[in-house]
Amino acid sequence: MAPKKGILERLDAGEVVIGDGGFVFALEKRGYVKAGPWTPEAAAEYPEAVRQLHREFLRAGSNVMQTFTFYASDDKLENRGNTQRFTGEQINEAACDLAREVADEGDALVAGGVSQTPSYLSCKSEEDVKAIFKKQIDVFVKKNVDFLIAEYFEHVEEAEWAVQVLKTSGKPVAATLCIGPEGDLNGVSPGDCAVKLVKAGANIVGINCHFDPETCVKTVKLMKEGVEKAGLKAHYMSQPLGYHTPDCNRQGFIDLPEFPFALEPRILTRWEMQKYAREAYNAGIRYIGGCCGFEPYHIRAVSEELEPERGFLPAGSEKHGKWGTGLELHTKPWVRARARREYWEKLQPASGRPFCPSMSKPDSWGVTKGHADLMQQKEATSKEQLKVLFDKATQNA
Amino acid sequence: MAPKKGILERLDAGEVVIGDGGFVFALEKRGYVKAGPWTPEAAAEYPEAVRQLHREFLRAGSNVMQTFTFYASDDKLENRGNTQRFTGEQINEAACDLAREVADEGDALVAGGVSQTPSYLSCKSEEDVKAIFKKQIDVFVKKNVDFLIAEYFEHVEEAEWAVQVLKTSGKPVAATLCIGPEGDLNGVSPGDCAVKLVKAGANIVGINCHFDPETCVKTVKLMKEGVEKAGLKAHYMSQPLGYHTPDCNRQGFIDLPEFPFALEPRILTRWEMQKYAREAYNAGIRYIGGCCGFEPYHIRAVSEELEPERGFLPAGSEKHGKWGTGLELHTKPWVRARARREYWEKLQPASGRPFCPSMSKPDSWGVTKGHADLMQQKEATSKEQLKVLFDKATQNA
Amino acid sequence: MAPKKGILERLDAGEVVIGDGGFVFALEKRGYVKAGPWTPEAAAEYPEAVRQLHREFLRAGSNVMQTFTFYASDDKLENRGNTQRFTGEQINEAACDLAREVADEGDALVAGGVSQTPSYLSCKSEEDVKAIFKKQIDVFVKKNVDFLIAEYFEHVEEAEWAVQVLKTSGKPVAATLCIGPEGDLNGVSPGDCAVKLVKAGANIVGINCHFDPETCVKTVKLMKEGVEKAGLKAHYMSQPLGYHTPDCNRQGFIDLPEFPFALEPRILTRWEMQKYAREAYNAGIRYIGGCCGFEPYHIRAVSEELEPERGFLPAGSEKHGKWGTGLELHTKPWVRARARREYWEKLQPASGRPFCPSMSKPDSWGVTKGHADLMQQKEATSKEQLKVLFDKATQNA
Amino acid sequence: MAPKKGILERLDAGEVVIGDGGFVFALEKRGYVKAGPWTPEAAAEYPEAVRQLHREFLRAGSNVMQTFTFYASDDKLENRGNTQRFTGEQINEAACDLAREVADEGDALVAGGVSQTPSYLSCKSEEDVKAIFKKQIDVFVKKNVDFLIAEYFEHVEEAEWAVQVLKTSGKPVAATLCIGPEGDLNGVSPGDCAVKLVKAGANIVGINCHFDPETCVKTVKLMKEGVEKAGLKAHYMSQPLGYHTPDCNRQGFIDLPEFPFALEPRILTRWEMQKYAREAYNAGIRYIGGCCGFEPYHIRAVSEELEPERGFLPAGSEKHGKWGTGLELHTKPWVRARARREYWEKLQPASGRPFCPSMSKPDSWGVTKGHADLMQQKEATSKEQLKVLFDKATQNA
Repeated sequence: MAPKKGILERLDAGEVVIGDGGFVFALEKRGYVKAGPWTPEAAAEYPEAVRQLHREFLRAGSNVMQTFTFYASDDKLENRGNTQRFTGEQINEAACDLAREVADEGDALVAGGVSQTPSYLSCKSEEDVKAIFKKQIDVFVKKNVDFLIAEYFEHVEEAEWAVQVLKTSGKPVAATLCIGPEGDLNGVSPGDCAVKLVKAGANIVGINCHFDPETCVKTVKLMKEGVEKAGLKAHYMSQPLGYHTPDCNRQGFIDLPEFPFALEPRILTRWEMQKYAREAYNAGIRYIGGCCGFEPYHIRAVSEELEPERGFLPAGSEKHGKWGTGLELHTKPWVRARARREYWEKLQPASGRPFCPSMSKPDSWGVTKGHADLMQQKEATSKEQLKVLFDKATQNA
Repeated sequence: MAPKKGILERLDAGEVVIGDGGFVFALEKRGYVKAGPWTPEAAAEYPEAVRQLHREFLRAGSNVMQTFTFYASDDKLENRGNTQRFTGEQINEAACDLAREVADEGDALVAGGVSQTPSYLSCKSEEDVKAIFKKQIDVFVKKNVDFLIAEYFEHVEEAEWAVQVLKTSGKPVAATLCIGPEGDLNGVSPGDCAVKLVKAGANIVGINCHFDPETCVKTVKLMKEGVEKAGLKAHYMSQPLGYHTPDCNRQGFIDLPEFPFALEPRILTRWEMQKYAREAYNAGIRYIGGCCGFEPYHIRAVSEELEPERGFLPAGSEKHGKWGTGLELHTKPWVRARARREYWEKLQPASGRPFCPSMSKPDSWGVTKGHADLMQQKEATSKEQLKVLFDKATQNA
Repeated sequence: MAPKKGILERLDAGEVVIGDGGFVFALEKRGYVKAGPWTPEAAAEYPEAVRQLHREFLRAGSNVMQTFTFYASDDKLENRGNTQRFTGEQINEAACDLAREVADEGDALVAGGVSQTPSYLSCKSEEDVKAIFKKQIDVFVKKNVDFLIAEYFEHVEEAEWAVQVLKTSGKPVAATLCIGPEGDLNGVSPGDCAVKLVKAGANIVGINCHFDPETCVKTVKLMKEGVEKAGLKAHYMSQPLGYHTPDCNRQGFIDLPEFPFALEPRILTRWEMQKYAREAYNAGIRYIGGCCGFEPYHIRAVSEELEPERGFLPAGSEKHGKWGTGLELHTKPWVRARARREYWEKLQPASGRPFCPSMSKPDSWGVTKGHADLMQQKEATSKEQLKVLFDKATQNA
Repeated sequence: MAPKKGILERLDAGEVVIGDGGFVFALEKRGYVKAGPWTPEAAAEYPEAVRQLHREFLRAGSNVMQTFTFYASDDKLENRGNTQRFTGEQINEAACDLAREVADEGDALVAGGVSQTPSYLSCKSEEDVKAIFKKQIDVFVKKNVDFLIAEYFEHVEEAEWAVQVLKTSGKPVAATLCIGPEGDLNGVSPGDCAVKLVKAGANIVGINCHFDPETCVKTVKLMKEGVEKAGLKAHYMSQPLGYHTPDCNRQGFIDLPEFPFALEPRILTRWEMQKYAREAYNAGIRYIGGCCGFEPYHIRAVSEELEPERGFLPAGSEKHGKWGTGLELHTKPWVRARARREYWEKLQPASGRPFCPSMSKPDSWGVTKGHADLMQQKEATSKEQLKVLFDKATQNA
């Protein structure tokens, strides 16, 4: 078998690369990840569950198997109360093996991922923070992943540090922030963030998590404008939430009152995902995937929308009539009448919840009741302020 | 190992029996079932995917592994265009083996299931319809399932026939209709339906699919009243949708414009599931499970709500803080403030869809545009009327 | 000038009679009625304001000027804290004079109205209650109104007493209850209520207030069925709320949390009023008016919808292009595109309130917080129970 | 009687001046103004109806009676098809007399108003446009109004011209634009607009119409910042819509699909008006009134909210218990429980419309179907572009 084309070969050739969906949310619903800590020990504990999810994304058309290593840095695992049944190294290695095993069942690459660290938020030095990243990367290099992703950073500075460490591997590097059009938590604009990441060495830049597809595509556009204005070059990626979040403030869905246990009414339909795929493509984004809330059928919808560009459907489409054509067999004519594109594109789905509103007001300092001791604090988004909170939180826990 | 207690032993002893969730909808989203046909050939084609879903429900607390044999009667498989890569027998056998394999990993029973047939709707004779059921049951007997379920019947008459055939196995029999408080499609009231089913030999009666938990519990209550008024005895079960459907007409969620590809905003949260579990329990229902839309975390919520009655939590709760206590570690105090029961019980989750309504008008004859040829027909719900439609539909297909 | 045709002559001839709208709500917004007491002393205090509202309804097409005498019985005025600047007699007389003055400016009749009394709710004798009605009727007879209306009764028994007294005048009598399809507060069905009222002597029966047009038309249909089944004859009328109330319980909009100061989002558009007029007409209702929430333009919409049947438009239509044709002059083409019937009929108007739900749960015993002393009481709807509440309420006030 | 204090004396002394509400929308619903043309011939035709509305606003606490002269310039009257039963001069004079008559019944001033002209939009010269204003002002001077208002301008340039003409009268001049935070239709920011108006001679600047109270207060804040940054001084006023319009684009409620005949669900409650009054006051706005959608009870709510600052309640409050205290007499305890501020402040009123969304997408070029000839045009907001449309529109009409 000829070696697979690498991520940059694909993107340089103008191909669409389809990412995968969010593992922590999907596995939480399947019973293998605990909401709150969100740590990925399941890679070592329940490998069959993680392998199955990889396979479903592969069937759905994903070209990338991200190692299930979110929040798997040693400091995070420790901070989140990992029971130490498995070491961080064991978890990271198991995650690499699972991703590789499934990637080799199809045309997918393995990407090793790092994300923001408690060390940064607690104001550890650049050296300390980089050491944390280095430890995870050592596993990725040992396991020979195909490329690396620094993702879910709220502060571009930390993302730059991550990129710098990842670059030492010699592998292609992607970097995505979890910010919206207003910029990172220090107020750096998306355009400036993107320039910094490219200068730090990222080959691919973009956005993941925290906001819905519409907002993420909009923010990546701002990044692209910034990069182009600076006379630089990059590839672009987006891996948004699978939830509608028109009511978010700058810190995204974390502050919505529904996070994380009542987001169901916000889940995107497959047709809304096709719209996302088209808009991302039209915006010049070629690495198109998802984050929290994306299930395998959402990725399949991305693959189906981009069939004309990619020239093929994913394996999983054997079990899906495009635009609902599987309904043509239905006994009721009004259900058969739904077996067409116009129907689903135009439908504004009802919530079935007449006692619920359509938007929420994000929580923030001063809003939450019953925590009077913390209420006098102002919004803390700088690193220093977050340290205070972090200390309080870990002390309370 | 001592043999497991049977379904009737458990119910007679006053135990709560927790069912599983809906396989066709869950596996459709995972890429293994095609919406429209909804047939379960994946049991033979992709056993690892079906096994994994069984395991997740087991972890979530299910005491019953239903064989993945919905719409697996020969006439249905043929009608829905089964490619015959596998015979109906192979599919039914594979489904039994998978259910048994996982059931034996914990304290679960295996239930073989049959559901309504095209043969009945096309007005085949009682003898012919019963022969269809018999063929599936032969497999269940051969594979020695623990009990049998006749489920998803819109006409009580067909369900009675099914129960009569199932009873010949000598195993306990449960029977659930997919009807609402208005009764079956021939207008037989829920109370009368229940009496007929009990008289036909069902040990457990109730409702599955088509309506939301609130409606199903209400309908089972009507069944219970009918049975008690008739001086009969039975156990009661409910396996509702995992979707809110306050806007349904008598044929349930099939007629909602969002069926089946835009139901996302209607998905119940885990907290709404706890409410369902409590209401079902209070109504005297002791076999409490789910149908389409129920994911493993929904069943886990049922198990968690009924911990006081059952005396234990399911395995999957190792990855779940009851009432969101896993959030206590969060850095933001307003997110930590969500780690409590009152918060989630009171929350009215926003849809994130300001351009969408909260309720839909069900489709029905005369409503759907562009099918003028069928539009003059009146609502057809009797067997004879459905036959006409069935013929048309299969002819068109 | 030839004398005007009486109400029964018109209805017997098959003519449509258009009622007026609700004075207390309209004048509350204009600053002349106090919400809570809802008493009509403005007839004597601010005659120009009451006269102006009569004129607007006349211009809108009303054939009936109801005297502004709602809650103007002596016991009510006293109970509601009337300052006695004017006696009940003065108020009732002033109201008659104003209605007559405006009625004579066009083709309208004057109707004197009585409504339910505190005396009945506090369990006074039939004799006492009838004496209360008699006192108001003496004024109506002296002022020679054209016919009489007994309206806004929650208990059919009290309405029958009222009709019996009104009949002594020798004038035609209409009687409307403020009940829904579930019947009056003693559980008498709409059909039985109507039969009782007809037997008591009412020439016209129907529904006013408490529910939206859709519900009122449905309830009048039930009344008509009852009357016809009993082999009796009557004319039918409906004067519903100008508010959407799909979420009401049996006591109507009083129990909605928005009553009476946050009903704005529920106000019907003029196009929804046209729909009401058509549905009422199709149901065989020929006296079609409105109650609380109906403004002059709502009555005009009723008149415009029924132009084909009536053969003419009301005076007020000089200032209204049917179906929005006045927009044809607009500079923007997309606003001009709204100048047509299909546009307005199809429009589902947005609330502009994304943080609000679409339905409310009615308040009732046990729901309201902070009134623990009253919370243990069950729902009180019988006369005896209401007496207790009445005593408590007046004692508290 | 001592002469009344002038508008500037009041504002200079720090007093709150309460404006009136929107006459064209209120009188449209009463049957005296035609939607589409929106012209004020009723001042001459139906003086009693206009007088009554003035009186209601006076009772509600208004300190200003605006002459009912909106769109009463000769070019507008002609353009909108005025039947010429009355000349523009007659209409303007009648409007002045009515405002004066009612103003003299209380502590109110008379303000003569001019608004944007078709002449400007059709690119007439500055001289021609100013001549149009001059003609109206001649009437105002002859009738000796107390001050002048230039209102409802979408282009600051035309407003400047108006102010320059108004200043020739020697009377105080207020100027309000109907723009949002994005600025006027030529893209001039609110801050720059305000500076231009002050430099043109306006004593009071602000916003009226087109947007909801929240948006208008926000825009006036931007104006205030601009004026202060420029080292200038002015008084500030706001007269917003009485409708919620969170979904507007820059041209305001005109482009909402519900304009103008289905805005009902958006009407503000009295409690939302109190919130507006407080926010306007806190923003430094001292001339606080309303525009389209404001009814007398809305202005009364403004007066009641600002009772602490003004030291008195308006006459109309004799018929209003502050914060619903009139409900204390109600027989039902749960209704009595609504007689308090917290209840109404917290209530999120339901729409009663479960089939409707909460927000709309504004119409604009390319959106409206069936007007293919105009659909290729881009959004036209400059004067030149609007001229083309204007010509087309008048030609079509």
